[in-house]
Amino acid sequence: MKNVKCCKCVRCGKEYPAAPDITTCECGGILDVIYDYEYIKTKISKESLAQCGDPTMWRYRAMLPIEEDTVPQGLRVGGSPIYEADNIARNLGIKKLYIKDDGINPTSSLKDRASAMAVTKAVEAGYRTIACSSTGNAASSLAGNAAKAGLKTYIFVPDRAPKGKIAQLMMFGANLTAVRGTYEETFELSKKAIDKYGWYNRNAAINPYLSEGKKTVAHEILEQLDFETPDYVAVSVGDGCTIAGVYKGLYDMYMAGLTDKIPRLISVQAEGCCPINTAVITGEPWTPQEENTYADSIAVGVPRNADKAIKAIIDSDGICVNVSDDEIRAAQRYLAKNAGVFGEPAGVTAAAGLIKLSREGKLDKDATIVSIVTGNGLKDIESAIQNCGAPVSCGNDLEEFEEKFGLA
Amino acid sequence: MKNVKCCKCVRCGKEYPAAPDITTCECGGILDVIYDYEYIKTKISKESLAQCGDPTMWRYRAMLPIEEDTVPQGLRVGGSPIYEADNIARNLGIKKLYIKDDGINPTSSLKDRASAMAVTKAVEAGYRTIACSSTGNAASSLAGNAAKAGLKTYIFVPDRAPKGKIAQLMMFGANLTAVRGTYEETFELSKKAIDKYGWYNRNAAINPYLSEGKKTVAHEILEQLDFETPDYVAVSVGDGCTIAGVYKGLYDMYMAGLTDKIPRLISVQAEGCCPINTAVITGEPWTPQEENTYADSIAVGVPRNADKAIKAIIDSDGICVNVSDDEIRAAQRYLAKNAGVFGEPAGVTAAAGLIKLSREGKLDKDATIVSIVTGNGLKDIESAIQNCGAPVSCGNDLEEFEEKFGLA
Repeated sequence: MKNVKCCKCVRCGKEYPAAPDITTCECGGILDVIYDYEYIKTKISKESLAQCGDPTMWRYRAMLPIEEDTVPQGLRVGGSPIYEADNIARNLGIKKLYIKDDGINPTSSLKDRASAMAVTKAVEAGYRTIACSSTGNAASSLAGNAAKAGLKTYIFVPDRAPKGKIAQLMMFGANLTAVRGTYEETFELSKKAIDKYGWYNRNAAINPYLSEGKKTVAHEILEQLDFETPDYVAVSVGDGCTIAGVYKGLYDMYMAGLTDKIPRLISVQAEGCCPINTAVITGEPWTPQEENTYADSIAVGVPRNADKAIKAIIDSDGICVNVSDDEIRAAQRYLAKNAGVFGEPAGVTAAAGLIKLSREGKLDKDATIVSIVTGNGLKDIESAIQNCGAPVSCGNDLEEFEEKFGLA
Repeated sequence: MKNVKCCKCVRCGKEYPAAPDITTCECGGILDVIYDYEYIKTKISKESLAQCGDPTMWRYRAMLPIEEDTVPQGLRVGGSPIYEADNIARNLGIKKLYIKDDGINPTSSLKDRASAMAVTKAVEAGYRTIACSSTGNAASSLAGNAAKAGLKTYIFVPDRAPKGKIAQLMMFGANLTAVRGTYEETFELSKKAIDKYGWYNRNAAINPYLSEGKKTVAHEILEQLDFETPDYVAVSVGDGCTIAGVYKGLYDMYMAGLTDKIPRLISVQAEGCCPINTAVITGEPWTPQEENTYADSIAVGVPRNADKAIKAIIDSDGICVNVSDDEIRAAQRYLAKNAGVFGEPAGVTAAAGLIKLSREGKLDKDATIVSIVTGNGLKDIESAIQNCGAPVSCGNDLEEFEEKFGLA
């Protein structure tokens, strides 16, 4: 990989050659992929992107850690829409608001970006089996992308995972274990099995390439905004991998000379599970927390990528905000009704934070803001049904209809 | 609209000016939009498409019935992936098979193409409220696209509609009525209300523009295949609007000189509800049937667009095949596991038909076939869960895990 220098530990700084199946540093720290941006500048430009016919995440392959002759594997990921949400912006008193709907990826979440990268690296490294633990979306995206790539999967989810995600996993033919326990225990079991059987490891953070897939959402946002850098990018935060990936994408584009600044991140966590925001706000090292939120995808009490996430928030001069489950529920309804984007609870947590900050007057009125929706609301129908209420029941009778809608 | 000549009744042949809110012929027949293909040839070519930066359905606007200065409304629809499914093709003994995954549209079904057209025409005509009846997907796509466009909606679904679709509708802020009765009774109630209150009518078939939105899936398929026309296109059939739309798109491309033939349609219905296929096979007029299939989106006993659908199948020298619910269930698992595409029951019915025909040796071995998946499996989780079984339950215990997967 001519564009990659090495993998470097974010904790101790030790450097490693970027092998396709590298995991963590011997000190236990998470690795970051280090690029040669001078080389990358010779391979990508606004003009080359404008000419690029590939609408997927791989249009940014000049900034991705794959070999020059690697054929990307998995489903067709990326190219998700970004919407101007003018009526919401007016309502919140923000100058310009964009909603990036990454829930329309093939398995309906942003995690497809990481999983497409994972199956590509697994095939590059010659593996036939790939495994991970996940609160759900990483797992279902891995199962779908692996099914397309012809890889076998072992997948571990906490048994609280919503039915929609379970159904996806089973349909995609994963060898699926629902672990009776927390996400942390789910992760531990996956680690023991992966260590013993030597499967390709798609556990987020452990595998440094996953954030590199996720970062393409930031590349895309910036290109879709015609390289006009927004002031803020709001992200829902659980494990820390997504916000770290978003930061990396913003950093890439800046370092490659395609943008002139790095936006401030808005890190939004659930009040009932906010170890990363707590660490940033207090300046203390992060400590494990309970997982008290119904937004299952970000209910991560022991975040695997806290180091990278905290660094990303601080380096971008970011803002941390925690929201209640009720605020998440309200944001889910608000976004669907006013933008036509129906996100899952964790998927709309970023928007919930944004709404809260704007109502508290904590955002510049002149700001341009992007809020990323990370997963489709269809992933968790049970909670959506509870949130939105039931339809009006009616016979085939116009009078009954008029009466029930007050039209008579 | 310089590209449109008129709207013409498919039953009696009477012609009408193409008003944006035109519905059916005075004889009760369905209208078809008639184009000036000589004019269209001056506006679209392989080269102009290659240069077109718009990845949505509107890249085909030269062949769409909107005014030259109309700004398309609604969500970002179209640009869905087409996958080569080589392992499935090998398994079925077909030369080449493509899966067109239209379930990744913004509200997760092909119906978004019709609804984006509907809200665009409603806004063009100055309406503020739009209404429809639907088995679910047309409704949820209308609600999402209308939410984006700022239109009010009244929507009628049969009360058997799956929870996923109901949740979408409620989230998008629709005024939603769950009708205690069949789809036919649901349709009747919507008609009475629309007639009385003068809302824009998004009922499929009644509104001739909806098929014109749907047809863009065929435009896309042909462009994605580099204008190499496949031999067959398989489509799930309920109301008849989708297959009629697919045919229209294939016809457009042929008439505009972009392709050299029209593929044969494979019309797939559920055994328990197959009035259109029955009519084609027997050569008799269609008659109403019961709605005995769990594939809710195609459980339409009184198809609104039977005339256009039957004509499309016959004109394309099409093949009709009916499949059982068990065959649909098997196809859902097969497609997810082998192609990474998880469709809803009606969404994979086309594939079920294709599998059946190929196993019966009724398709040319040298054929290139496209099978359209019309909706995402997340739309109907309950039936998916019943179909795919439950995951293995396990504690955080490697020995228990190994035992349960036979790895010990």
